[in-house]
Amino acid sequence: MGMQSNLINIVLVDTIHPGNIGSVARAMKTMGLSRLSLVNPRVFPSDDAIALSGNATDVLKNAKIYKNIREAIKDSTFVYATSSRDRSIQWPIKDAALAAKDIRAEVNNNKEISIIFGKEDRGLTNDELENANRLIEIPANPIYPVLNLAMSVQIISYEIFKSSSDVKLKEWRDYPEVNSEQLQMLIDHFIETAIDIDVIDPDNPKKIISRIKRMFTRLQPDEMEASFMRGFLSGIKKKLK
Amino acid sequence: MGMQSNLINIVLVDTIHPGNIGSVARAMKTMGLSRLSLVNPRVFPSDDAIALSGNATDVLKNAKIYKNIREAIKDSTFVYATSSRDRSIQWPIKDAALAAKDIRAEVNNNKEISIIFGKEDRGLTNDELENANRLIEIPANPIYPVLNLAMSVQIISYEIFKSSSDVKLKEWRDYPEVNSEQLQMLIDHFIETAIDIDVIDPDNPKKIISRIKRMFTRLQPDEMEASFMRGFLSGIKKKLK
Repeated sequence: MGMQSNLINIVLVDTIHPGNIGSVARAMKTMGLSRLSLVNPRVFPSDDAIALSGNATDVLKNAKIYKNIREAIKDSTFVYATSSRDRSIQWPIKDAALAAKDIRAEVNNNKEISIIFGKEDRGLTNDELENANRLIEIPANPIYPVLNLAMSVQIISYEIFKSSSDVKLKEWRDYPEVNSEQLQMLIDHFIETAIDIDVIDPDNPKKIISRIKRMFTRLQPDEMEASFMRGFLSGIKKKLK
Repeated sequence: MGMQSNLINIVLVDTIHPGNIGSVARAMKTMGLSRLSLVNPRVFPSDDAIALSGNATDVLKNAKIYKNIREAIKDSTFVYATSSRDRSIQWPIKDAALAAKDIRAEVNNNKEISIIFGKEDRGLTNDELENANRLIEIPANPIYPVLNLAMSVQIISYEIFKSSSDVKLKEWRDYPEVNSEQLQMLIDHFIETAIDIDVIDPDNPKKIISRIKRMFTRLQPDEMEASFMRGFLSGIKKKLK
């Protein structure tokens, strides 16, 4: 993300509750966005906004206030609007994930993008919507698709963040997985012990041995786990002596 | 979604602010989820919760309250935990989109799933986390990955909703997975045995017990495997007499 995120302009129109502006700032920052534009906020700046912004007071501090949408979006090459209402006139529409991929591509080409979010109780008017090149739809329950303002910002920011190529999953293992040979040794040790303590049915050993193998291969133990299990099996043997 | 959504159990642990419970209910309903479990909520029922739930008062009305996590998740075959903290012991982890696809596939196979969310200020403790088979990570800004509780529920519910096309995993198991309660009993039995045969270091039991829990939750044994393992552990005890 880095500096490019400044090319993504989140525009809130006629926001009623300043707490929502704070929640939006926090949602943006969790997804690496920082540029917030406020068109006619009812109350701003506001302690409620700060209270709900978590550690994103910098986003609030740098927010710009505009008298109308056109001024807020004027340098943007692409403008997206969010809406859940059915409209008399349908606008070209993309779902959040596809729109995010487009936005990412545009930002990578150094284009400035605005994403407009309407007033809490009624969303964007048709006049406001018609400033946009595209509409973004968040897939939702058709019976109750009414996301809170900050929730909508959170999901769209999340999709934009996900679309940045360098998101990488965290490595959760603290020890490397054992290799196949080590795993076989552990399985053999386990089976041997199970025989020693008479828990493998001598009439039908094959099926249970298959199950034991499946269980350990599925587990994919790491070196520490395998070492502990070998210690556990040796512990049994020691006690049996 | 329909009736199946009742197989997805959203579990909030030790929630401080009732308003957050309301926001969670709304977030769930926008994505077609309806089953909310509350473990030791500080205040519930609550007018703040109702005020923030929008049109999701039905979700609040049907919420169940539990004294501890184990009771809330006991019938679940798969348990997911959410966490953003770095931990001394790492748990198997999937990002929200991949986890959602797994969850959808499991629900399509008629499995009950729980997703646990920790307390607002500190998330899940390690003890709470160790009830889970997998950890869900929401990709986020590494500098400030701190999503509000309801935001986390919103994104995970959204990913689950998005995955609601008919993804279905081929059922390879010949016996059903044990539920969370059966798994806990097996883990307790194993730890007890490990103590009996002196393979748990009395100076530092906690870390190895965490590893044992991680190993078994990751394995997700089926009923036949669990039954075999219990037989194995009982076999040891019998020999020790």
